[in-house]
Amino acid sequence: MCGIVGIVAKSNVNQTIFDALTVLQHRGQDAAGMVTCEGNRFFLRKDNGLVNEVFRTRHMKRLAGNVGIGHVRYPTAGSSSSAEAQPFYVNSPYGIALAHNGNLTNADDVAEQMFRADLRHINTTSDSEVLLNVLAHELQLQGKLKPQAEDMFAAVQRVHERCKGGYAAVALITGYGMLAFRDPHGIRPLIYGKRETKSGTEYMVASESVALDISGFERVRDIAPGEAIYIDMAGNVSTQQCAENTTLAPCLFEYVYLARPDSIIDEVNVHISRMRMGKKLADKIRRERPDHDIDVIIPIPDTSRTSAMEMAKELGVTFREGFIKNRYIGRTFIMPGQVQRKKSVRRKLNPIGMEFKDKVVMLVDDSIVRGTTSSQIVQMARDVGAKKVYFASAAPPVKFPNVYGIDMPAAEELIAHGRTDKEIGEEIGCDWMIYQELDDLKQSVSEGNPSITEFDTCVFDGQYVAGDIDEDYLKRLKAARNDSAKGKNKKASSNESSNLCSKID
Amino acid sequence: MCGIVGIVAKSNVNQTIFDALTVLQHRGQDAAGMVTCEGNRFFLRKDNGLVNEVFRTRHMKRLAGNVGIGHVRYPTAGSSSSAEAQPFYVNSPYGIALAHNGNLTNADDVAEQMFRADLRHINTTSDSEVLLNVLAHELQLQGKLKPQAEDMFAAVQRVHERCKGGYAAVALITGYGMLAFRDPHGIRPLIYGKRETKSGTEYMVASESVALDISGFERVRDIAPGEAIYIDMAGNVSTQQCAENTTLAPCLFEYVYLARPDSIIDEVNVHISRMRMGKKLADKIRRERPDHDIDVIIPIPDTSRTSAMEMAKELGVTFREGFIKNRYIGRTFIMPGQVQRKKSVRRKLNPIGMEFKDKVVMLVDDSIVRGTTSSQIVQMARDVGAKKVYFASAAPPVKFPNVYGIDMPAAEELIAHGRTDKEIGEEIGCDWMIYQELDDLKQSVSEGNPSITEFDTCVFDGQYVAGDIDEDYLKRLKAARNDSAKGKNKKASSNESSNLCSKID
Amino acid sequence: MCGIVGIVAKSNVNQTIFDALTVLQHRGQDAAGMVTCEGNRFFLRKDNGLVNEVFRTRHMKRLAGNVGIGHVRYPTAGSSSSAEAQPFYVNSPYGIALAHNGNLTNADDVAEQMFRADLRHINTTSDSEVLLNVLAHELQLQGKLKPQAEDMFAAVQRVHERCKGGYAAVALITGYGMLAFRDPHGIRPLIYGKRETKSGTEYMVASESVALDISGFERVRDIAPGEAIYIDMAGNVSTQQCAENTTLAPCLFEYVYLARPDSIIDEVNVHISRMRMGKKLADKIRRERPDHDIDVIIPIPDTSRTSAMEMAKELGVTFREGFIKNRYIGRTFIMPGQVQRKKSVRRKLNPIGMEFKDKVVMLVDDSIVRGTTSSQIVQMARDVGAKKVYFASAAPPVKFPNVYGIDMPAAEELIAHGRTDKEIGEEIGCDWMIYQELDDLKQSVSEGNPSITEFDTCVFDGQYVAGDIDEDYLKRLKAARNDSAKGKNKKASSNESSNLCSKID
Amino acid sequence: MCGIVGIVAKSNVNQTIFDALTVLQHRGQDAAGMVTCEGNRFFLRKDNGLVNEVFRTRHMKRLAGNVGIGHVRYPTAGSSSSAEAQPFYVNSPYGIALAHNGNLTNADDVAEQMFRADLRHINTTSDSEVLLNVLAHELQLQGKLKPQAEDMFAAVQRVHERCKGGYAAVALITGYGMLAFRDPHGIRPLIYGKRETKSGTEYMVASESVALDISGFERVRDIAPGEAIYIDMAGNVSTQQCAENTTLAPCLFEYVYLARPDSIIDEVNVHISRMRMGKKLADKIRRERPDHDIDVIIPIPDTSRTSAMEMAKELGVTFREGFIKNRYIGRTFIMPGQVQRKKSVRRKLNPIGMEFKDKVVMLVDDSIVRGTTSSQIVQMARDVGAKKVYFASAAPPVKFPNVYGIDMPAAEELIAHGRTDKEIGEEIGCDWMIYQELDDLKQSVSEGNPSITEFDTCVFDGQYVAGDIDEDYLKRLKAARNDSAKGKNKKASSNESSNLCSKID
Repeated sequence: MCGIVGIVAKSNVNQTIFDALTVLQHRGQDAAGMVTCEGNRFFLRKDNGLVNEVFRTRHMKRLAGNVGIGHVRYPTAGSSSSAEAQPFYVNSPYGIALAHNGNLTNADDVAEQMFRADLRHINTTSDSEVLLNVLAHELQLQGKLKPQAEDMFAAVQRVHERCKGGYAAVALITGYGMLAFRDPHGIRPLIYGKRETKSGTEYMVASESVALDISGFERVRDIAPGEAIYIDMAGNVSTQQCAENTTLAPCLFEYVYLARPDSIIDEVNVHISRMRMGKKLADKIRRERPDHDIDVIIPIPDTSRTSAMEMAKELGVTFREGFIKNRYIGRTFIMPGQVQRKKSVRRKLNPIGMEFKDKVVMLVDDSIVRGTTSSQIVQMARDVGAKKVYFASAAPPVKFPNVYGIDMPAAEELIAHGRTDKEIGEEIGCDWMIYQELDDLKQSVSEGNPSITEFDTCVFDGQYVAGDIDEDYLKRLKAARNDSAKGKNKKASSNESSNLCSKID
Repeated sequence: MCGIVGIVAKSNVNQTIFDALTVLQHRGQDAAGMVTCEGNRFFLRKDNGLVNEVFRTRHMKRLAGNVGIGHVRYPTAGSSSSAEAQPFYVNSPYGIALAHNGNLTNADDVAEQMFRADLRHINTTSDSEVLLNVLAHELQLQGKLKPQAEDMFAAVQRVHERCKGGYAAVALITGYGMLAFRDPHGIRPLIYGKRETKSGTEYMVASESVALDISGFERVRDIAPGEAIYIDMAGNVSTQQCAENTTLAPCLFEYVYLARPDSIIDEVNVHISRMRMGKKLADKIRRERPDHDIDVIIPIPDTSRTSAMEMAKELGVTFREGFIKNRYIGRTFIMPGQVQRKKSVRRKLNPIGMEFKDKVVMLVDDSIVRGTTSSQIVQMARDVGAKKVYFASAAPPVKFPNVYGIDMPAAEELIAHGRTDKEIGEEIGCDWMIYQELDDLKQSVSEGNPSITEFDTCVFDGQYVAGDIDEDYLKRLKAARNDSAKGKNKKASSNESSNLCSKID
Repeated sequence: MCGIVGIVAKSNVNQTIFDALTVLQHRGQDAAGMVTCEGNRFFLRKDNGLVNEVFRTRHMKRLAGNVGIGHVRYPTAGSSSSAEAQPFYVNSPYGIALAHNGNLTNADDVAEQMFRADLRHINTTSDSEVLLNVLAHELQLQGKLKPQAEDMFAAVQRVHERCKGGYAAVALITGYGMLAFRDPHGIRPLIYGKRETKSGTEYMVASESVALDISGFERVRDIAPGEAIYIDMAGNVSTQQCAENTTLAPCLFEYVYLARPDSIIDEVNVHISRMRMGKKLADKIRRERPDHDIDVIIPIPDTSRTSAMEMAKELGVTFREGFIKNRYIGRTFIMPGQVQRKKSVRRKLNPIGMEFKDKVVMLVDDSIVRGTTSSQIVQMARDVGAKKVYFASAAPPVKFPNVYGIDMPAAEELIAHGRTDKEIGEEIGCDWMIYQELDDLKQSVSEGNPSITEFDTCVFDGQYVAGDIDEDYLKRLKAARNDSAKGKNKKASSNESSNLCSKID
Repeated sequence: MCGIVGIVAKSNVNQTIFDALTVLQHRGQDAAGMVTCEGNRFFLRKDNGLVNEVFRTRHMKRLAGNVGIGHVRYPTAGSSSSAEAQPFYVNSPYGIALAHNGNLTNADDVAEQMFRADLRHINTTSDSEVLLNVLAHELQLQGKLKPQAEDMFAAVQRVHERCKGGYAAVALITGYGMLAFRDPHGIRPLIYGKRETKSGTEYMVASESVALDISGFERVRDIAPGEAIYIDMAGNVSTQQCAENTTLAPCLFEYVYLARPDSIIDEVNVHISRMRMGKKLADKIRRERPDHDIDVIIPIPDTSRTSAMEMAKELGVTFREGFIKNRYIGRTFIMPGQVQRKKSVRRKLNPIGMEFKDKVVMLVDDSIVRGTTSSQIVQMARDVGAKKVYFASAAPPVKFPNVYGIDMPAAEELIAHGRTDKEIGEEIGCDWMIYQELDDLKQSVSEGNPSITEFDTCVFDGQYVAGDIDEDYLKRLKAARNDSAKGKNKKASSNESSNLCSKID
């Protein structure tokens, strides 16, 4: 998962992009990057690290220009998606930089076609570099010295025809403008807004609406599936549908966990959708155990707080903060001759004993992936005296890998893969395991925007809305993850850091 | 404010000190330091930055030894307390390192006496360096080649006689042991615990009990006011009261804001004391406006959440998370030719509009200092549509400076200084301003430990329990702050970074 | 001035390129870079700094592959040549990296043609980026999926047709091989050699033969003017003349000052050519003042030592080291409120007083550019007691700017511009000023290789062998230098650091 | 070996100390440090690295004050002398910083006495820390609130009584002045000078006179053996002899190799002493082989150039520069799975073949220590075609370790230890090996100052002028070196970097 932003403004954009990336930081803490454009010059700075580590004053001074794009990156170990800092750059045609959130599922095939058709060299395993080169190639075919919006849209149309997967992208075309587009199923989010200034109207596209909020941009609307938006240097906005047979099928996981609660994605308020998740969980509890003995509902901070609170309210049960999250990152140093200590959830959470002591507690988390943390938390609750420990997940069981840009383990590593709810409960050691129903989850979201009738639900039901995913693809994905886990790919991954599109240092 | 920790263990202590400092990080994010001792060698690493920035693997490798102390420091602009990274070190006698939380109110006088009596040079303006040299001087007077616990206690007794203020300190005496002590009024907290291992019992002293929790130390008890504890290299523990006329008068602000909710200080659970604060605020609301029209209670994250939630429960009013805190630090870059943008609270908080829209909202914060943030928050609530905005503070009005180790503005900068509650409300722009009563606050804490009959309440009522504070002292404090604010002291503060006790780099 | 190297080997080349760059470091201390190629992957590391600062173990580990190129760069303030770290990279076609020594005199025109013809964006003011894109464009026009040597040579032929100036370049074509070429007048040097290993023959091209020496490569021959050499990944070598009307007109300044004495350039041993310069200076002295009163001949270290020693021997005058060079770089710190101290030659040289005391000294330098240093040196000699101070230059008066890759001031800043020898002597304050004759200098070199009949002598006589230099060009050059000196171009030069072709960090 | 400097000036001294350290850098490239004093404040910056790496603008800004001392350090592996960056600091009494060049041969004993007598903790293995604490202890015993020159001298007298070895030291006493002193045998050099300014006279003491030269200080005189100089903050100078039975026995190796040629040490011009060394070598050659067949004399750069040139002149043989030194430091990277390549002298020197081809060459070096480099150089000369290779050393055979501050291998590692000249020649592979006679070397120096009748000649004849060196000491020295070589002392040496006297970072 990643966060992207693009701005066409009337004065320097570096600070505004910086601010946007800061509030999108939850979408990726691994690397950050920014490209700005002044006249015919590009300025690029990207590196591993948090936004406020990557951009120092010396970099900001050089990131000149009223137009720019930015990116924050999530570490994606061994998946087919990229481990490269973005944006990427090619100098032909025009000089184009691109940043991307999502995953192309046919990146390898496209990269090979690219070389054969256009001799374009892709130097990393990043599908973002592929996406950029497809766009570049198609723009080159247009052959315009001064490309217009329609040339951009024609190229995006070709991109949609050639690339499969879930993706939202922003691109900067030196000297001409900023282009953004969203895949034909609208899996990954993309929104745009505007801000009036004395010098004229400024525009921002971003992964989430919070990026608009922090700098006073007003939300205009979500980019539609398959749609592209082009804003030239002068600030003229054009939008156009560039794909056929589009559907809006947003990723459910954005609402469950990924997005900030204060964001509005495809017109659904994330915070309220989470409240509805809590309410529906409460309904299920009442259905399953009308005479439950829950004394207190305790969230696993931070995401599940909203659902848990609403669930408690609905059930009329006391809600309490029972875990304090350690805000400052701990670390285990490996001293010479030592072996790695087992990672303990105690580094992240500390229980307040009296909230558990002699009580029947219902713990609430947003979702369960591998289950290792959950089982440690259950144990921790018991250690401080809980009489019984129940566990609720605001999302249904996560049983399948994600191929549209969310880094998740292979199926075999998912605790829910091939297990019933009861078996999962036994595995994590709780006395009662309760999962949200998939339909309830869908409704929690679609009640906010009834026009959404389809979702990317792949991690729950293995249905890949953008198609093209076969057993073979999943096998390769698993193999890549395993190699990576075992360090076999170390060369490959160091390759990825050698990305040939440069930085301001 | 600072956090301190000291450990006498049976194996390397660097990781355990690191972990303790990480969970004490909320007490100071400005600098961190650690000293360990192996045989007759000291190893020191300290620098500005967060714990996980200051300590890298290369430093940890060198921080050898089973005994050590650590420190995290809060920035204290222009106050008489230190802006130096700690621990401090002197090589005579024995080699002693010391770390300290609090403030000596007679540091300047003592420093001068020290030079006259013992030619000891104090190179910084840090009162911690003074405290260390008093301890060193008094130990030197004992003149023992192999000092015992009683020599340590005799020296601490002299420290208490000579130093005024609020302080909790840990010291390491090379080759001999670890010494910790707390001021005769017990203003700053200090607790100790133990952990059984195969090689024997290990001991930790720390500012807060969470430091014990994270590494599996069991809480033994708080160090009493005026008491000292000495643990020699072999792990033998001695404690002794080293002051006369002691009283337990813990700082109320620890419970209101400073301490982690999961800490237990002087036998009072901080989390529960905050719940009581919420309940008592609710009582006051009911007394003042039995027919209030509050639609929703919204905390200003994070500290006030506990009080606000209990207050809502008590009043039977809906509780909602209406502000999302930006976890990642923003920053404003000053570009050449630009002026600093006004610091906006929007960088820290983003409102979820629908929780405010057309509602009468009661915002709850733990306390109000300058009031500038509060007034921006009130405005933000109005901007997203709140019908009326009320504001509750879990602490009484903050009207006086703190001289016992908490960095606070001079009286004139405090919004409550010289204003009635109503005037404060007008100043921050809310429709109703409601403050906790001081007696209610005291009770919120003392109900957890009825043996506490006195508190350091100086910021609320200007009563300085450790005495010695006159108009002159407060004037100098104010002048120092002003100079610092105006940059006059720049040389002085760069001095402070030139601390002559070194680091592993 | 810059240094370049390229290697096709049988095992990892990173260390050998590193070693070569180290001995070419005298050609440029401002920046260094290296690209290696393994399979279809490029690895790039470049940054400002000395070779041993830019390449750390962590970079070397990633610079995998048996083929690679390297570059060291001289700072070129405000000239039309680049201030960018090299190599540069384009991904289309094939992925090509290029490093370059020299200067294109029609870079601006070519860059514009490039954009019009191929939409290629040049992001810096570096003529090397232009050169790379011309090569890339011409290779793209060949359109081969698997390009062969003849395709490479065809492209180089077009490069020679389109580009004017003095240049020697190495390029790496991902997956295919290494290409090197020299301008049709052979102004900048380029040599190649080979090394036999168990796994087969390895090849190196480099700016100077010392790069071959240090790694045990045997000199094969200089690349001829206009000639190109292509070595594919398998180690097959092809060479071909790619230009018409070529002449060998090497830069005289290489022999005078730029090259290492132990290099052999165009079959002329640099060391011996400098000895001949000394001898011919002695001849002129004898002609001009047969009864000279010189007591001692003292070189200005280091370059002039060779000439001075031979001159002393020829004249039968004592030779002495009278100046000790400070090997460690000094620096003047600008403290707040201070003004920059005048740069003093005393930071670089310290006289040994007794070698000057009461003597008539003849100082010898390789050449005189601005004359400011020379005049300080003359004064220094007087200060330590020299009776008379004479000054000899092993090169003729430098009167004109260089446009073929050597960074030199504009004509107006050259002390010899518009002055007679006598006037120059007065200007620098010496009692006798003696310059090498241009014909003598030419002979000093051509005696080592009589087949060289022409030289690039532009700095001495304003004759630009590669043509195309008009008043207009020189005016723009001067303006660029002035702007740069006055800081006007600061934005432009910071632009140049934002080079879009990336680095391993 | 180290370099020291101390200044009492009328304005900020940081730049002048920086400049002095730069020209003393040849005495130690491993670490650098500076302490300045303003009012009662000390400012310290020290770190590993070259002078211009250790001191950045941010450090210089903080190094305020008109008085200061500086130090550059040579790496001393496993010897009893220190591997710590200096100056060291103690805060009691007064606050004293000290920097030191040399070695105490009874440091361990003194350190133990120090702890017993004064409880002073020495945290490193550095004898400089010991020296500082002896001085501090003795000053404390004087007990003066405002110490005067006579108190300083009394303390230095005690230092001389307690410490054995060769040492030159500068110390800064906070708020009072600068003190410098030299051991009673004058083994290590120390000189002082003065500079007139508008604000009054400024004083500098330094290891070598070049430090005076670069900043325009005029040489006053060498500090005598056993003498101390004290300059108070006001600039009042006092000197006093503080030892009995002193002799001037300067280290011969300073003249042979250590010192800069442009320095004047104990009134002997180093450059001229080296010329005399060459002349005397020529005499010996004529004595031994009146009909020698030497064609050319070639120095091994840089030190031996002076001797070699004079030797050639004396013999009437051609002198030539046959080796070019690589000024830029090479490095061998250890890649994973590789073994260290043999260190090759080719990284340092490149021969100019034609100067050797078919000739009988006499190579000249200043001295031979292990002989490994010499033997590679001889081979290199043969490889480029020398007919015969002779080898001359300007110093006699180095047969014994140095204990007075020069880092040298143990006796067993010295090629001359237990070998005749002829055997040494065979070992390094030359056709004739010729060494300077010890008496000739002494005369080369003493002819410059006939009052010097004694020298520290220990490396040549095993005579330790400062006494106290027995077999036991040398055994421990050897053991320390061996342990260090084998990495056993790694902990110890990492200890040494944990020096507890701090830095400005």
